Amino acid sequence: MSNLKRVYTFGDKKAEGNASMKNLLGGKGANLAEMNLIGVPVPAGFTITTEVCTEYNQKGKDAVVELMKAEVEVGIATTEKTMNAKFGAKGEEFPLLVSVRSGARASMPGMMNTVLNLGMNDETVKVIAEKSGNEKFAYDSYRRFIQMYGDVVMGVEAENGEHCPFEQVLDKVKKDNNYSTDTEMTVEDLKAVVEDFKAVVKAKAGEDFPTNPWDQLWGSVCAVFDSWNTERAILYRRMEQIPDEWGTAVNVQAMVYGNMGDNSGTGVAFSRDAATGEDQFNGEYLINAQGEDVVSGVRTPLEITKIGSLRWAERNGTSEEVRVKDFASLEESMPTIYNELNNVQQKLEDHYSDMQDMEFTIQDGKLWMLQTRNGKRTGAAMVKMAVDMLKQGLIDEKTAILRQEPNKLDELLHPVFEASAIANAKVLSKGLPASPGAATGIIVFSADDAEIEAEKGEKVILVRRETSPEDLKGMYAAAGILTERGGMTSHAAVVARGMGKCCISSAAGITVSNTSLTINGIAFKKGDYISLDGSTGVVYEGKVATITPTLDGDFGKMMDLAEKNTKMYVRTNADSPSDAKTAREFGAKGIGLCRTEHMFFEGERIWAIREMILAENLEGRKNALAKLLPIQREDFTGILEAMDGFGVTIRLLDPPLHEFTPNDTTSQAEMAAKLGISIEVVKAKVDSLHEFNPMLGHRGCRLGNTYPEITEMQARAIIEATCDLKAKGLNPKPEIMVPLIGTVEEYLMQEEIIRRVAAEVQEEKGVKVDFMVGTMIEIPRAALTANEIAKHAEFFSFGTNDLTQMTFGYSRDDAGKFLPIYINKGILKNDPFQQLDQTGVGQLVEMATQKGRSVKPELKVGICGEHGGEPTSVEFCHRTGMDYVSCSPFRVPIARLAAAQAALR
Amino acid sequence: MSNLKRVYTFGDKKAEGNASMKNLLGGKGANLAEMNLIGVPVPAGFTITTEVCTEYNQKGKDAVVELMKAEVEVGIATTEKTMNAKFGAKGEEFPLLVSVRSGARASMPGMMNTVLNLGMNDETVKVIAEKSGNEKFAYDSYRRFIQMYGDVVMGVEAENGEHCPFEQVLDKVKKDNNYSTDTEMTVEDLKAVVEDFKAVVKAKAGEDFPTNPWDQLWGSVCAVFDSWNTERAILYRRMEQIPDEWGTAVNVQAMVYGNMGDNSGTGVAFSRDAATGEDQFNGEYLINAQGEDVVSGVRTPLEITKIGSLRWAERNGTSEEVRVKDFASLEESMPTIYNELNNVQQKLEDHYSDMQDMEFTIQDGKLWMLQTRNGKRTGAAMVKMAVDMLKQGLIDEKTAILRQEPNKLDELLHPVFEASAIANAKVLSKGLPASPGAATGIIVFSADDAEIEAEKGEKVILVRRETSPEDLKGMYAAAGILTERGGMTSHAAVVARGMGKCCISSAAGITVSNTSLTINGIAFKKGDYISLDGSTGVVYEGKVATITPTLDGDFGKMMDLAEKNTKMYVRTNADSPSDAKTAREFGAKGIGLCRTEHMFFEGERIWAIREMILAENLEGRKNALAKLLPIQREDFTGILEAMDGFGVTIRLLDPPLHEFTPNDTTSQAEMAAKLGISIEVVKAKVDSLHEFNPMLGHRGCRLGNTYPEITEMQARAIIEATCDLKAKGLNPKPEIMVPLIGTVEEYLMQEEIIRRVAAEVQEEKGVKVDFMVGTMIEIPRAALTANEIAKHAEFFSFGTNDLTQMTFGYSRDDAGKFLPIYINKGILKNDPFQQLDQTGVGQLVEMATQKGRSVKPELKVGICGEHGGEPTSVEFCHRTGMDYVSCSPFRVPIARLAAAQAALR
Repeated sequence: MSNLKRVYTFGDKKAEGNASMKNLLGGKGANLAEMNLIGVPVPAGFTITTEVCTEYNQKGKDAVVELMKAEVEVGIATTEKTMNAKFGAKGEEFPLLVSVRSGARASMPGMMNTVLNLGMNDETVKVIAEKSGNEKFAYDSYRRFIQMYGDVVMGVEAENGEHCPFEQVLDKVKKDNNYSTDTEMTVEDLKAVVEDFKAVVKAKAGEDFPTNPWDQLWGSVCAVFDSWNTERAILYRRMEQIPDEWGTAVNVQAMVYGNMGDNSGTGVAFSRDAATGEDQFNGEYLINAQGEDVVSGVRTPLEITKIGSLRWAERNGTSEEVRVKDFASLEESMPTIYNELNNVQQKLEDHYSDMQDMEFTIQDGKLWMLQTRNGKRTGAAMVKMAVDMLKQGLIDEKTAILRQEPNKLDELLHPVFEASAIANAKVLSKGLPASPGAATGIIVFSADDAEIEAEKGEKVILVRRETSPEDLKGMYAAAGILTERGGMTSHAAVVARGMGKCCISSAAGITVSNTSLTINGIAFKKGDYISLDGSTGVVYEGKVATITPTLDGDFGKMMDLAEKNTKMYVRTNADSPSDAKTAREFGAKGIGLCRTEHMFFEGERIWAIREMILAENLEGRKNALAKLLPIQREDFTGILEAMDGFGVTIRLLDPPLHEFTPNDTTSQAEMAAKLGISIEVVKAKVDSLHEFNPMLGHRGCRLGNTYPEITEMQARAIIEATCDLKAKGLNPKPEIMVPLIGTVEEYLMQEEIIRRVAAEVQEEKGVKVDFMVGTMIEIPRAALTANEIAKHAEFFSFGTNDLTQMTFGYSRDDAGKFLPIYINKGILKNDPFQQLDQTGVGQLVEMATQKGRSVKPELKVGICGEHGGEPTSVEFCHRTGMDYVSCSPFRVPIARLAAAQAALR
Repeated sequence: MSNLKRVYTFGDKKAEGNASMKNLLGGKGANLAEMNLIGVPVPAGFTITTEVCTEYNQKGKDAVVELMKAEVEVGIATTEKTMNAKFGAKGEEFPLLVSVRSGARASMPGMMNTVLNLGMNDETVKVIAEKSGNEKFAYDSYRRFIQMYGDVVMGVEAENGEHCPFEQVLDKVKKDNNYSTDTEMTVEDLKAVVEDFKAVVKAKAGEDFPTNPWDQLWGSVCAVFDSWNTERAILYRRMEQIPDEWGTAVNVQAMVYGNMGDNSGTGVAFSRDAATGEDQFNGEYLINAQGEDVVSGVRTPLEITKIGSLRWAERNGTSEEVRVKDFASLEESMPTIYNELNNVQQKLEDHYSDMQDMEFTIQDGKLWMLQTRNGKRTGAAMVKMAVDMLKQGLIDEKTAILRQEPNKLDELLHPVFEASAIANAKVLSKGLPASPGAATGIIVFSADDAEIEAEKGEKVILVRRETSPEDLKGMYAAAGILTERGGMTSHAAVVARGMGKCCISSAAGITVSNTSLTINGIAFKKGDYISLDGSTGVVYEGKVATITPTLDGDFGKMMDLAEKNTKMYVRTNADSPSDAKTAREFGAKGIGLCRTEHMFFEGERIWAIREMILAENLEGRKNALAKLLPIQREDFTGILEAMDGFGVTIRLLDPPLHEFTPNDTTSQAEMAAKLGISIEVVKAKVDSLHEFNPMLGHRGCRLGNTYPEITEMQARAIIEATCDLKAKGLNPKPEIMVPLIGTVEEYLMQEEIIRRVAAEVQEEKGVKVDFMVGTMIEIPRAALTANEIAKHAEFFSFGTNDLTQMTFGYSRDDAGKFLPIYINKGILKNDPFQQLDQTGVGQLVEMATQKGRSVKPELKVGICGEHGGEPTSVEFCHRTGMDYVSCSPFRVPIARLAAAQAALR
């Protein structure tokens, strides 16, 4: 390890690293190097590698500081030389101040700590004041540094619900002098603040604020490494599935100043529109500000381009006069800088062949690029950018497809508000369309409440003044986020887009506290409904109805690309003709799971099934089932017709019978009255049906094998519907699926019934139809004995929901008590109900597929668990050699794209 | 198929078959052939093979009669020649009458139908009357034939609860003539009965009674084949695990008559004592009777040997005078025949090297052997006979061991009555010690009630006048059987011994109806307690306390043989020092499963665990656990001491926490008062702990990983106990077992806690101890990823109870709703919770063992599910290469024997 190169320098269009070294230098570090190499102006500095982070976690602070010391000293020396400044300068030299930032392989916005203006002390501040001729700037930087360092490195924090102690000092100065903003403070005020801040540090941290820049540097570098293991960083990694062992690099870079006066500024820019995908350079900036001011949302930033500014004014009803005076774009206020920036963004996008998200600072009329990376984007933007870039010849088909994050398509597939509902809805406010999509829900004011209400099944809208990393779990739980403050690049906006959640920021006329929301004088409380349209920024009162999106335009083109490149096809899980139609429009080629029991719950049907349950003998059950027959036949007719020409897998009755009986006395009395029997009989039956572990109880084919008359009725309904449609000239293709097989004997008994009834019906109707009989593989024993089962079954469909439950021994209904803890503690990498566990459950799936095909090579194999719409699971299904995956209608496009990606990889 | 040999003849010391052809000829047919070959007198006849039964089930009656016709005709012709009689004789020839009996590979007592005296009609009866000079015998035989044939072949049965129609005819004749027994009927009566019987057949069956002997023969042969598929035959096969496809042979054999007068008789004999194993020829006989009279229990038979007769008289207080006059043994009444029989039994036992169960008939002073087979025996007799025969040089060690049915040892291991309890118990009656063992329970009078009460968890004593195959399911459910009538070879006695159930028959002074029991004038009703000692025949009033049997004498010798020949060793599942001691006495070498949670339910301990559950934070939980620590330490000290020198596998807390909290309001109020909190808090906690599928919920290592402090406490208690014992000079060997592992990460987190705490404790105590850490493999995923887990775990113990639940997806608590139906319908061959499913669950066990040993060849592997005491499962464990099996203390000897058998096979 001692021969490791731990530090990579960059600056003045030279660099030891490059863009391909992301794993070692982190995304930020690799791109800082790369930007130098392609001639973009970047302040000099160096990157300490991610390997050092791993060393740090293993060997501890002191050992690692010792190991990297010499190289860091070289890094500082190189930076000094390039920037013509001196770290810890005294007297003649211009002091070198540096920023210390984390930079992991994957972007973790707002997660990692940053220290700016490092190198400041009572000596250097004077030199800077003198050399810059701006004493206020110097002391303002100094006080910012003490606060940031005190917070990040020395752990000075708000205690017992008090305001942050640094903020208390500032509040007092402003109150004493009757200032409304920080910028009103005088040099003398700032000098006093610096002293007070140092006193705060001494009091809270129990030691003096370090004056030696080298001590400051080591403290900050180690704080970055430490921040890798904070609770919020760990939580973010869990959510984004970033391995703990990746570690973070540390970037130490010469400071440049956007706060040196009105000829300075800072901003964030995107080479294309991250929300819509439009090929339009855009971004936000602030004059006389440091980077944190833009992203924190404390000041509302201005548009970079004139077109962006004009659009902003239109949205806000701002007059051109006011716009030009108070809200001019960078294009208008600093045209030369703007042109340079525009050239840089174009160069970077061309170089990386992808949309760039850039940070820049203008110091006294000179542009410096501080960061570039592939920009996060909404699902719609992702699709549009790929289609556009393909058209523009920037990327090829394979890249266009592989660059999609299939899950992000979800945003394009979620309902949007109905036009008619919007027309009637009362508009409460309008804010920035920070993250698109529509959401309706109840108001909550804290992340905790968001979690609590969401767990109860409520859709919630998290309403905050502004969000911070502490709000992350609440944002995750919420359907939408509304903030009083912040721009398009505020924490709330960036994170919400990353999550694909609807978000509106800086909504007009709203005031948010920790317990209330007031919109233009109207008070809203926790639990009230509001609706957000994240694509327009409009906030509506109450609930607003939604409609289903369709597959066309760029989305349709992307789906065509997927279709062209896929091997597996995609079916849908659908229990109704309307679901079947929706899915077919999204490109589903058949139904992989039609759950017949859902049909039993509707309206009067429940009474027939209850009558069957209460029947004392076979005859009674048959009479009740006879009432269900025409209803089921009609259901199947509708679904088979909607999927005409494609296979429709119909699963026979699956849930335990007690799901059809009521547990409360009132409903039992109703049931007794309706069926003309005593309530005692109803109660006794309900009691007798009670199960300790219904998951593992009397359900699935166990019902069909103990009450064969149920299977007879269902088989009859399916084949009658098929015969009728065939007679009408259609091409119905039912695939009758026996659920919950554990032994081949269970399958054989059901198959015998189905084939016998099918023969009878075809004889009666005088029509010959095609149909298949197969089974669900959802019990471990079925997977283990798949070679026996495949001798008879014509198809397998993996029910990975139940297979996961039984393979792990987790009840999905109960696992909420320990699964989140398991994921937090790293016992599980992710929720196996969301992402197929390829090691365990997947082993059974592969085994069953191989065993099944070993006796029947043409065996049709698919998956109908919810994993069928989850991209990593879809890839697994592809590798396993499945014929298709099946998922809910709205996930069909996601699965299609994932299937194409799997085929291309 | 048409070249099949379907019929095998025997007679006059010649035979086409032999004893090795049991699969083809059935046990009875093969032995009839063999007896001829070794010179034993057997009436001539022939056997239709079991293959014909299979053909019959496939091709149907008419086709199969056609296929076997020619060979059967040859069989009849050969028999006619040997016996010098003519089938369907008219005039001069003596008519050949035959019996038609079933004979499967495995004995199925009372299961299959038999027809005697076949060949009788209005013609032959006259010839027989004339030739035999005994008209009454002729017509008595005729009327018996019509009744038997009418019942068995033509389906004439009692209807609507009426008495059997044939019995109604007999009752009327006896009533009209004031007879008390059948034998009082005159020839004229019998002739009238014959006519009436024929009328009954015509009326009930709708056709005439067949007069052609060939028609009678085909009808009977087919009825035997049909009887293979009667409900009671199927039930018996399920219980005894006899495959349906084995089929039955049919034996057609010349009739010989035990009812031709006082120089005739019939009986059943055993070459050794089937109850005790004593090497003493014994049996029972009746003068002037047919075979059915002995086994039906209608007449109480006499002893064959003088010693048996003397013992009988002593038991019954019968004077020698009365004994010699009315109850003389065959040895005394027919000494020549007795000597011949004694020689035959000796010859047969020597020939077969096993105890023989024989049927014989004496016709007019000539002995005929009708059947021989290896006799059923009690567990004690099984052990004693094998040990004796080994000593006598009849068999070798391997045979002695392999001849044991391990499950039968259960009888020797069940509690017997305490001597002191018997001394105080009121003796109600004394009967035949028909099947040994002790049973206490409530009285029931029907098989249905026996089942119903047993399902409720009651121990029941089935009390019947006499038993018939219809009572089988009730006998299966009962703890003991008491009958008013019947001898040692009655249906009740034979079946009870086969089942290993305690049975007393022919109890003195008792009268049984379908609803009442009167013993010497005292009336008992359903639900009253009585106690049976099947080894002495004594019936006691009320409940009688029992004691534990010990391992000595022949039993000890058999265990020594097992020990010498085994490869696997046997551990026990024990949660207390006393269980550990018992098991150690039975030869257990360690504990395979010590369930720590059982310790939490006792007395005050439950309050500490409840306090822990209700604690709101870590500190509260730790305080409560601190109270449990000394208690657990004491538990472990006791158990480790009792098993000193052997490994003790201690499983960490396994059940979900809600098992420790009360569900009813009263107990919740008590809990609230005791813990000083409000009942609402208790209720809320109980509600929050509720699970939909507790089997798959928050339990096992999921508890230890979410509340590490529980594992810490348990690890501390175990290691503290170990250190203390080590310090006292003992050799404790704890093996700490983590339950319910599904991922290696779960194991690692628990192992880290255990090893950390163990290091702390050893440091504190200044004692270094040996211990192991390993895991239970009971979740399918653990088996699938065993190679990962074995990198860390030192041992695997298969928890096949849970593994079966999850592999099949069966909740053991709920499967009662469909498992019995599945077994009845043949979907399952047997209950997978009793007998390990080698195909599915076993596949996971083998896979996990192989995967585990692939990374750690020395991995210790055992089983601690209840299958560990089930012989076929033990054999599987041996084949899989396990180091040990573990089972409940009373099954340890069974497992030891099964392990030795597995090693010998």
